[in-house]
Amino acid sequence: MTLADAPAPFLEVDVLVVGMGCAGAAAALEAARAGASVVVLERAGGPGGSSALSGGELYLGGGTAVQQACGYDDDPDQMYAYLHAALGPHPDEEKLRLYCDGSVEHFEWFRSLGIEFRESLYDGVSWLPPTEDGLMWLGENAWPFSELARPAPRGHRPAIRGMGGKLLMDHLTEAATAAGAEVHADTRALDLMVDDDGRVAGVLARRHGSDVAYRARRGVVLTTGGFVDDDAMVAAHVPALIGHGKVSDGLDDGSGIRLGLSVGAAIRRLASAQIALTVVPSLACRGVLVNGLGQRFVNEDVYPGRFSQAAVFHQPGPWFTIVDEKGWEDVPEPERWGVQPVIVAESLGELESELGLPRGALEETVARYNRDAASGEDALFHKASRWLRPLEPPYAAIDARDGFDPHGHGRRRGTGVSGFTLGGLRTSVDGAVLDTGGRPIPGLFAAGRASSGIHGEGYVSGTSLGDGTFFGRRAGRTAAAED
Amino acid sequence: MTLADAPAPFLEVDVLVVGMGCAGAAAALEAARAGASVVVLERAGGPGGSSALSGGELYLGGGTAVQQACGYDDDPDQMYAYLHAALGPHPDEEKLRLYCDGSVEHFEWFRSLGIEFRESLYDGVSWLPPTEDGLMWLGENAWPFSELARPAPRGHRPAIRGMGGKLLMDHLTEAATAAGAEVHADTRALDLMVDDDGRVAGVLARRHGSDVAYRARRGVVLTTGGFVDDDAMVAAHVPALIGHGKVSDGLDDGSGIRLGLSVGAAIRRLASAQIALTVVPSLACRGVLVNGLGQRFVNEDVYPGRFSQAAVFHQPGPWFTIVDEKGWEDVPEPERWGVQPVIVAESLGELESELGLPRGALEETVARYNRDAASGEDALFHKASRWLRPLEPPYAAIDARDGFDPHGHGRRRGTGVSGFTLGGLRTSVDGAVLDTGGRPIPGLFAAGRASSGIHGEGYVSGTSLGDGTFFGRRAGRTAAAED
Repeated sequence: MTLADAPAPFLEVDVLVVGMGCAGAAAALEAARAGASVVVLERAGGPGGSSALSGGELYLGGGTAVQQACGYDDDPDQMYAYLHAALGPHPDEEKLRLYCDGSVEHFEWFRSLGIEFRESLYDGVSWLPPTEDGLMWLGENAWPFSELARPAPRGHRPAIRGMGGKLLMDHLTEAATAAGAEVHADTRALDLMVDDDGRVAGVLARRHGSDVAYRARRGVVLTTGGFVDDDAMVAAHVPALIGHGKVSDGLDDGSGIRLGLSVGAAIRRLASAQIALTVVPSLACRGVLVNGLGQRFVNEDVYPGRFSQAAVFHQPGPWFTIVDEKGWEDVPEPERWGVQPVIVAESLGELESELGLPRGALEETVARYNRDAASGEDALFHKASRWLRPLEPPYAAIDARDGFDPHGHGRRRGTGVSGFTLGGLRTSVDGAVLDTGGRPIPGLFAAGRASSGIHGEGYVSGTSLGDGTFFGRRAGRTAAAED
Repeated sequence: MTLADAPAPFLEVDVLVVGMGCAGAAAALEAARAGASVVVLERAGGPGGSSALSGGELYLGGGTAVQQACGYDDDPDQMYAYLHAALGPHPDEEKLRLYCDGSVEHFEWFRSLGIEFRESLYDGVSWLPPTEDGLMWLGENAWPFSELARPAPRGHRPAIRGMGGKLLMDHLTEAATAAGAEVHADTRALDLMVDDDGRVAGVLARRHGSDVAYRARRGVVLTTGGFVDDDAMVAAHVPALIGHGKVSDGLDDGSGIRLGLSVGAAIRRLASAQIALTVVPSLACRGVLVNGLGQRFVNEDVYPGRFSQAAVFHQPGPWFTIVDEKGWEDVPEPERWGVQPVIVAESLGELESELGLPRGALEETVARYNRDAASGEDALFHKASRWLRPLEPPYAAIDARDGFDPHGHGRRRGTGVSGFTLGGLRTSVDGAVLDTGGRPIPGLFAAGRASSGIHGEGYVSGTSLGDGTFFGRRAGRTAAAED
């Protein structure tokens, strides 16, 4: 809407941030520290967003203190080489370069907010380590990445058992409010207000049931998250996610992306998505992961989101983990996340028949795998030799659709898939929202999953909290410096 | 730009069409027939666009005269069921329903323009039949589609040997100009002009080196084609196409999509693309198509664009056709499109070694295939039994990267892949361009590949000329009827 059509301002501030997840908090903090008056509109009852519900991993490297303490010699070029491949094809190279070069500083910024990281490595494969270790592998040591960049673990985790997102958001929120940013909860952005010169000059919002205008003197920063919760946008852009679980707080409805589009913003990579298959990585590594035809399709020791994308985007389902008794026993019960074998069988023929796989398919797959395992070389997918061992009867199959049941609640069968969206508004490295000609839209900024960040098609845990905060900080500083 | 900022109109018309491919010609023709004054801006030297360079297939059915003459009992529901699956997942159901229900009438419309169709079927598998038959199969008789809908051939081809797009565009252009539409060639749309009420009221264009304003009293119809020729848009939305061949006239640069976005249009499915792999379908059907690991991944008798999408979007390359001597000999030389075997070998072990495939992979694939072929049932991918025969030495491999060389020019190795984009502006079934809230943008219409048509992820030949003209006609009529 035009500024002239807007109601009289309820409030005027320098920088208005929309959405108080990790990107919004980072933007608010840096804008406030730069001397701007800052208000953050949050439609939920309080700060946090999807970030607060996340595992809290931060993908950081290039030689952080934790990496050094654990004996890993990392540098920004190796980090760049890994992420370029793992987030690709076709990540945003300019953003990625800055992200890798600034990663050690960004890690220290988190520590300066009082967030602690243990100086120890969890040396397994997991969606979420069962420890408080501060460092974890996220696929860096798996083929082909192990040949493209010197492997170093870069998953940084705050010192807490279980999900760390809440702890992270508590510290970010505390720092932002301490710096002077105000959070207006239960306040939803409805429309952007544009002045006569075409500059974004504020937001029309609904607050406690009334429409109110927030005037922003320097800039509006959209940090509203992705769009996995908007069925129409998912159907239009990422149909592979339709009907699956949503990794979000329920409010990732693409509102910021739509606001940007309404003033002529360009978008990028709306079809990219993170995917989580309910497969226990440490079980899959000890066996094989097969598609609905009984074929292997990936080295099972990659970052779990990678085998998940490989399955859901590219392979016919359903997807099964096939292990033998020894593989099953090798994984401690708490690390099995409550999964149960769907079928246990003495022969592969029996197993494939029970699973509805084409006759002979699983026998052929395992025969090939066992020959390769015996030779110490996975000729098809190059799984690391530490995981290679011929499988022996009895066998067990775990159906990804049976999901995780870590607390023994008897989870019902689902799709086995959940995810969130990666694409969004096209932004400059400084957070300016760009139009389709590549020109900044005056007064409008974005960060986090409302924008398109460092990602191409791929995903690695910790790159959302990572690039959300990294480019959120930059967007906050840029907005604060506007005239 | 605002109308106030625009130069004095060079010309005022009722309906202004931008782009004279099949959608633009159809829109111009119907708008003119409805009594509107119509000008079409075409940036090239004359009408035609990518449509004129196409094969000229029209995907039509539901019981056309040609289908009936060939003995096929088709109806709109069967056509809908096939396209819903083949263009899916998640095609535009509302558009698809109209398209199928209106298909017989649309076929008669083409005949009424003087376009002839022979009443005979080419009963093979081909990108482009070597005959003048008016009807061809486009995957309707291949699994799983043969089980989802009663198979009927629906590829309609004008009576001409080879590429039929030019003939089609000549007739469309002649009809449109005869109805009173004027084509302004060498005229490129630069910007939309918007009046004080936010209504699109014309186009600023560059014509013979000067910027001139075209005022449109009733509406502007964007029919500028897709965006495969804009490297930045391809990189942002369909990175899988980067570096590959472009199926276009070189001017499909997304300009109309960008114009729509500049006034707040929503977009849909920018990541969808048609893919053509340089594989001879009739050779692939007689052998196996394998990925870079020597694995089969599809029934080779599907519509060729489908095995192409399956390969390029979902399988590691390079992609090879493996046939035996009998299969090679069974395909008449002119139907081999000049492809040459890259390797001929007495054993599969020799072949896989020469092709750089993992040891044993091709042997396992062909052993499985031969067992299934001997039993008459392709248990993995369900290729029709007419194509199943155990392969025998000597074998030949054809590398898709070697391309077609129908005229014996010794074509150089390429990527083996070409394609074009399917996504675009979100439109109503009547051609109105919609904003992100689903509301029509007043005065703005679109059709053809500048818009998102009936497609989900999949593609079938003839659906671009088909839905481009079908919804182009509707857009032209809607624009002409505006106040």
